[in-house]
Amino acid sequence: MVNQKYKEMLGEKSVIRQIAETATARRAQIGTDEVFDFSIGNPSVPCAPEFTQAMIDLYETREPHELHGYSPSVGLPSFRGAVADSLNRRFGMDYTLNHIFPTSGATGALAHAFRAVTKPGDEVLTFAPFFPEYMPYVEGTGAHLSVVPPDTKAFQIDFEAFERALNPNVTAVLINTPNNPSGASYSAATLEHLAQVLLAKQVEYGHDIFLISDEPYREIMFDGVTQPYPAKFYDNTLTCYSFSKSLSLPGERIGYVAVNPRATDADIMVPVFAQISRTIGHNCPSSSMQLAVEQVSDKTSDLSIYETNMNLIYDALVDLGFDVVRPGGTFYIFPKSLEPDANEFARKAMEYDLFVVPSDSFGMPGYLRMSYCLETEHAKRGVERLRKFVHEVYGR
Amino acid sequence: MVNQKYKEMLGEKSVIRQIAETATARRAQIGTDEVFDFSIGNPSVPCAPEFTQAMIDLYETREPHELHGYSPSVGLPSFRGAVADSLNRRFGMDYTLNHIFPTSGATGALAHAFRAVTKPGDEVLTFAPFFPEYMPYVEGTGAHLSVVPPDTKAFQIDFEAFERALNPNVTAVLINTPNNPSGASYSAATLEHLAQVLLAKQVEYGHDIFLISDEPYREIMFDGVTQPYPAKFYDNTLTCYSFSKSLSLPGERIGYVAVNPRATDADIMVPVFAQISRTIGHNCPSSSMQLAVEQVSDKTSDLSIYETNMNLIYDALVDLGFDVVRPGGTFYIFPKSLEPDANEFARKAMEYDLFVVPSDSFGMPGYLRMSYCLETEHAKRGVERLRKFVHEVYGR
Repeated sequence: MVNQKYKEMLGEKSVIRQIAETATARRAQIGTDEVFDFSIGNPSVPCAPEFTQAMIDLYETREPHELHGYSPSVGLPSFRGAVADSLNRRFGMDYTLNHIFPTSGATGALAHAFRAVTKPGDEVLTFAPFFPEYMPYVEGTGAHLSVVPPDTKAFQIDFEAFERALNPNVTAVLINTPNNPSGASYSAATLEHLAQVLLAKQVEYGHDIFLISDEPYREIMFDGVTQPYPAKFYDNTLTCYSFSKSLSLPGERIGYVAVNPRATDADIMVPVFAQISRTIGHNCPSSSMQLAVEQVSDKTSDLSIYETNMNLIYDALVDLGFDVVRPGGTFYIFPKSLEPDANEFARKAMEYDLFVVPSDSFGMPGYLRMSYCLETEHAKRGVERLRKFVHEVYGR
Repeated sequence: MVNQKYKEMLGEKSVIRQIAETATARRAQIGTDEVFDFSIGNPSVPCAPEFTQAMIDLYETREPHELHGYSPSVGLPSFRGAVADSLNRRFGMDYTLNHIFPTSGATGALAHAFRAVTKPGDEVLTFAPFFPEYMPYVEGTGAHLSVVPPDTKAFQIDFEAFERALNPNVTAVLINTPNNPSGASYSAATLEHLAQVLLAKQVEYGHDIFLISDEPYREIMFDGVTQPYPAKFYDNTLTCYSFSKSLSLPGERIGYVAVNPRATDADIMVPVFAQISRTIGHNCPSSSMQLAVEQVSDKTSDLSIYETNMNLIYDALVDLGFDVVRPGGTFYIFPKSLEPDANEFARKAMEYDLFVVPSDSFGMPGYLRMSYCLETEHAKRGVERLRKFVHEVYGR
C-alpha cells in the first residue's frame, strides 16, 4: 500500500530518460563511437586536480574523527567561511559564514530555499524554457510553479509576459542563469530590469518576493564574459549553487544556499533552513567533502572544452539554417526544431543515431536541447552526422 | 517574510543543545579534562581502517569521472548489490540490489520510508523512550506520530499499551533497536510478538501496517549478542540504516533503506523512493563514498570501547542505587533520575561539571540519558565525579 501520489509519479514518462535508454541500447549494439548522444548533461571533464590533491592531503594528514566527524546541521564553519570569502572576493558581496548553508547539491539548496520563503498555496514563477525538475521541486512543497512564456529572440526575459504573470499570490521568482536548456546568460540589463519590477511589486503587494537564483552553471561562461551575480542586483535573493559543474564533481552532491545579507530575515534564514532539514530528512554534505572543497572553492576544472564544442555546434546549426540563439554559457544549446513537433524531429534523428531532447518538458514545445559534454573529436563527428541527417531528411 | 511554520520551530528550545552549549563553555573555562560530558552521542572511535584504505586506493586507481560521476538517483548498482549481499549473508535475507536504496544517512532513509507507506493524516506509532527527532521527521510528512507508553521494566514493548494505541488510522509502526536512549535491544521474542500483533491488525483493519525499523546502532551490541533482524520476523518491513556508527563515519552521511522482498509493493518501492527524492530535494550519497563503503560493508570500527564504558557506568549506577536497565547495545544508558524532575537532577549535576540529558524530550519524564562516547579513562573519572555528586547531593 504505497502512497498513491508517488506511485502515480512513476507513470510519468521521462522523455529524457527514454532517449538515454535508447542511446545506451544502441551503444551496446553498434559501439560507443557510432552513437552521437547529445541528450545527457553529464560533466565530462576530470575534476579539478587541486580538489584531488586536497582530498589526498586530508586523508594523509587528518585524524579520522576530524575528517569524518559530525558537522553541525548548518555545516562546517570553515566551509561556510570559505564560500562566503570566495563570493565576496569574486562578486563584491559581503556575506559572512552565517549567510551560507551547505547542502546536498543544488537540489538540496532549492528544497530549502522554496520552503523558507513560500508556503503551501503560494505561487512561484519561473521562465520558459526551464529545467523540468523544477516542477516536482516546487510542487513537492505545496506551492505551485507557474511558467512565464519565453523571450525566444534571446532567451532573456519577456518583461511584458512577466508583468502579466505577476500577481499577489507570487512570493518567489525562480531564475537559472546561465540557463539549462537554452544556454542563455542573463545580462546585467536583464537583472537590473528584473530587480526593478520585483521591487515595485513588493511595494504594490505589500509583501516580499524572493528571487531564488539557481546557478550551477555560473562558471561555465563563454567569450570571457562573467555571469553578472543576481544577488548583487536584488536584496531578497537566495543563491543556490552546486560544485557539480565547476569542479566537475557531479556525484559528490555538494552545494549551498547563500542568503543576501540585506534580504528580509537574513539573520534567521540559515537557522530556518536547519529546521527545514529536520522535516525533509536533509543532511548537509559529507564532512570530508566540505573540508576538501573549502580549499578549492575558487578553482574550476578545465572547462574550455564546453566552449570549443559550443562553437563548432553553433556554427553548424547556423550553417544548416537552424533558428538558434548563441549560448552565453552552460553545456547546452537550444535550436528550434526543423519541424513543428520536436518529438518527431528527435525520433527521426534517432534513426541516424543522433540523440537530442525535444523541448516539451522544458515548458515550450518545438525546440531541441543538445548537450555537448563530449570529447571534441566525437562532437565533430556528431556534427557531420547531423549534417547528413538534415540534408537527407529536410533537404538542407 | 520567512515561512512562519519553520520560524516557530526556532523557538523550540532543545534541551540537548543547551546542555551541549553549557558543556562547551565550561570546557573553555576549566579545560576538557575537568568536564564530564555524557550528553552527546558522537562516535568517538576512529573509522574502520579498511574504509580509509579503500578510499585511498580509489583515489590512486580510479579515473576522476568514475570516482565522482553522477550515480543514478537510486544509487550505484555496485553499492546496492554489496549491501544486499551483506544483509543476506548476515541475516539470512534474500534482498537483491533492487530492494536497496542508498540515502543520506538514516535521516534520509526515514524521510523516504515514512513518505512511501503513509500519507498525510495517517498515524505512525512509536514506543517511548524514542529519539526526539522522530517527531519532526514524521510530522514533516503530514502524518502524526503517536507514542506508546514504555515498558519501564526492560524497555522492550508494553504490548497491552501497544494494543490500546493501535487503531485503523495507523499505517506504520516505528522501532529503533538497539534503542536511543535506553540502550535496550529488542529480543527475538519481542519481535515475534510484535509481528503477530501487526499481522492480526492488518487483517482486522484490511490494510497494510508497515514496520519501519531504524537500526543505526545495530552493530553496537554487548555480551556477544547479535541484534535479531526485525525484517526477518515481519514481511512489511522497511529497514533504515546508517554507517555512521558501525564504520564511525558520522559526518559522511551514508545509509540506506532495505525493502523486505516480501513486503507489499516491494518491487516498486525503490522507484517510489526515487520519486519521493524529487519532491524533498534528496540526493543519494556521494559517489566516492558509495564506492568505498561497498568494499567494507561487513566491517566495523573497533567498537569494544562502548561495552567497556557501559559496564563501568552500569556498575557504578547500580552501586549508587539507581534504577537502571542494563543496555543490550548502543552507546547510551538510561537510568531513572534520583528525583522526580530529571531536569532538576541534570541542573544540579552541571554544578559538578557532569552533563547528562533529562528524558522529557524522549517521550517519558523522570529519566536521564547518558552517552559514553568517551575515552575510558575519562569515563572512569566521570564516574568518580558522579559518585561525589550523588553522595553530596543525594546522600548516597
